[in-house]
Amino acid sequence: MTIVPKGYRFGVAAAGFKKADRNDLGLILSIGPAVAAGVFTTNRFQAAPVLVCKELLAESPVARAIVVNSGQANACTGDEGLANCRATLEIVSEFARVRPEEILPASTGVIGAQLKMDLWASAALKLGGSLGRATAMDVAKAMMTTDSFPKLSTRSVQLEGGEVRLLGMCKGAGMICPTMATMLGFVICDVDVEPKAWREMLSFCADRSFNALTVDGDTSTNDTVIALANGASRVRAESKADLALLRACMLEVCQELSYRIVQDAEGGTKVAHIAVTGAKSHPQAELAARAIGNSPLVKTALFGCDPNWGRIVAALGRSGADFNPMDVVLKIGGILVFEKGQPSPEDLDALLAPCMRHQDVKIELCIGPGNGEFTLLASDLTKRYVEINADYRT
Amino acid sequence: MTIVPKGYRFGVAAAGFKKADRNDLGLILSIGPAVAAGVFTTNRFQAAPVLVCKELLAESPVARAIVVNSGQANACTGDEGLANCRATLEIVSEFARVRPEEILPASTGVIGAQLKMDLWASAALKLGGSLGRATAMDVAKAMMTTDSFPKLSTRSVQLEGGEVRLLGMCKGAGMICPTMATMLGFVICDVDVEPKAWREMLSFCADRSFNALTVDGDTSTNDTVIALANGASRVRAESKADLALLRACMLEVCQELSYRIVQDAEGGTKVAHIAVTGAKSHPQAELAARAIGNSPLVKTALFGCDPNWGRIVAALGRSGADFNPMDVVLKIGGILVFEKGQPSPEDLDALLAPCMRHQDVKIELCIGPGNGEFTLLASDLTKRYVEINADYRT
Repeated sequence: MTIVPKGYRFGVAAAGFKKADRNDLGLILSIGPAVAAGVFTTNRFQAAPVLVCKELLAESPVARAIVVNSGQANACTGDEGLANCRATLEIVSEFARVRPEEILPASTGVIGAQLKMDLWASAALKLGGSLGRATAMDVAKAMMTTDSFPKLSTRSVQLEGGEVRLLGMCKGAGMICPTMATMLGFVICDVDVEPKAWREMLSFCADRSFNALTVDGDTSTNDTVIALANGASRVRAESKADLALLRACMLEVCQELSYRIVQDAEGGTKVAHIAVTGAKSHPQAELAARAIGNSPLVKTALFGCDPNWGRIVAALGRSGADFNPMDVVLKIGGILVFEKGQPSPEDLDALLAPCMRHQDVKIELCIGPGNGEFTLLASDLTKRYVEINADYRT
Repeated sequence: MTIVPKGYRFGVAAAGFKKADRNDLGLILSIGPAVAAGVFTTNRFQAAPVLVCKELLAESPVARAIVVNSGQANACTGDEGLANCRATLEIVSEFARVRPEEILPASTGVIGAQLKMDLWASAALKLGGSLGRATAMDVAKAMMTTDSFPKLSTRSVQLEGGEVRLLGMCKGAGMICPTMATMLGFVICDVDVEPKAWREMLSFCADRSFNALTVDGDTSTNDTVIALANGASRVRAESKADLALLRACMLEVCQELSYRIVQDAEGGTKVAHIAVTGAKSHPQAELAARAIGNSPLVKTALFGCDPNWGRIVAALGRSGADFNPMDVVLKIGGILVFEKGQPSPEDLDALLAPCMRHQDVKIELCIGPGNGEFTLLASDLTKRYVEINADYRT
């Protein structure tokens, strides 16, 4: 059975934003005020719900609910989009019996179209009706777009004062894929925690999970991760030890969810774990890992199960990271492939063939004597990805 | 008939580096010393022929010949690769009757394998035998890898002292695609010109042609453009006016060749002309244009003939370029699509459908009141691209 944090209720409804008879509206409601934190897209074009969320969280670090819709992104919709977003919070607040400013909005779907406001009123009524009967899984399903499976992760952790529970859910099948706009993640917990500690925890975990993966290198206008902590467990996390335990638990949840995003990458068949170590700094290591993980040539080779290390090395070479080519050591699946500027003299194609068949492929690059490191999860690039994205709207 | 600059001879041979019975070795020989300039890959892993070329050009700005092979890149081959590269110059020099240090080498093919030195001696003999009988087109064909057609461009220009002729050739079907390593370009001319002026001219033209296109954003270990000017026309380019005319002519040749590369992009069906204006600086405009031209989502939409402007705007938003979203004006095929933060109220899908069918698609973005501008040629991303690159070695 799924571990569900105390003091939350869930609602879903089929509003018909894109398709009929499919739940596309979800609500996560906390029975009492919850400490709220969020991390958002860095794209300069930010969707209306992102702008509204940021505004609400700047005013108060406390929220009661998250409302999420799929099918319409409400991005690049100007002032009308902002007004629509605020109006949806008014509508939902009536049925959820919380104040509009206590609801954090999130949207995902096609960019540029205005919200179909006529559908919201009847949908919110259904949403209110389902509150308490729907499950977290129902909400995770309602926010799917091109996702092929819903993404949930739960944990409990024993703190000094007792047990607290975490539940995370997310959607995303292209990181970060603007038109399907795109990565949404919610983490709810019943711990009692200070807003500042909660915010720092979320940002620490997001950097090591949702911000450490790539499907296609595109960053959406709607990316949002929100974390709520409502204190319903009556367990307070305050000591250094408790906060560390809680953070480790949140990190596990976030990393499990982000692994699922890459596993469910549009058309993807592989999850590459690209670990760069020995860089002059962490950002340098990240630069190198991202150049490799976003290289179409590396990604197509992964799809073809081709141990084409030359493409990995060449992507590293153009990454902008600062290193000496003679220092670089590359291993694939634990097998030494390249060092001192040239390939290992083994029959690499034969040695590497079995590990290229796995869904998970480990690529380890030590690029020097430094302490900088970064690990990126990356999907492959497949014919199916092209099909999905060439035909998405037409 | 092709315009061929005076005082050059061409040779080709089938060495069997990758396939039998296909010319894979080419020689361009100047009858006298030619002023030589080169621009090279910025990848940190530089192929042996790139290192040798740079060394030779640093020693002397004069050369007699260019030797180019396809099938083997001689990249990531360590000290042995460098020694092999120098040995091939010795071998070729005997048959071409020029000194080894007067020959500039270029290679393209799979990374990581050592040159098949046993094949070079007999191939160089054939190369010598064909000298004078082969044409520039034969050399352009001999350096093809995944190219589907050879790429030649010629021009003549009237200077104060008389007519001079330029001929450019290149290979490349992924810019810049490491395993096929990748973009090679040669421009030969019979003008009499100073080395410094010639170098500056090449670098000016390369920045506005070969460095202003993208197929997959990958930069090869072997990219090389070499320009020779042998003075055989006995026309000297020295006055400002003559140098300007010559530069304009070279730019036309380089731009025609780089258009052909994008047109012949692996699996490509489209050439997008992405013109960014109004940026705070040229590098800012380039940042924006490259983010759009390299976005897999923009590229798959182009392939699908989908006027998905949301993806263009979202790629701009994450490009790192500094601009105000409200200033952005986007036109596709001359049609206003997006301004003041929202789409034009027209039926855009209907209006844009015809221009998405053309091979050439014009994307114009004005992102502010600045003077920075950059135009990038970009290919689309297709199922065929994935097929070619997933199956390249296997």
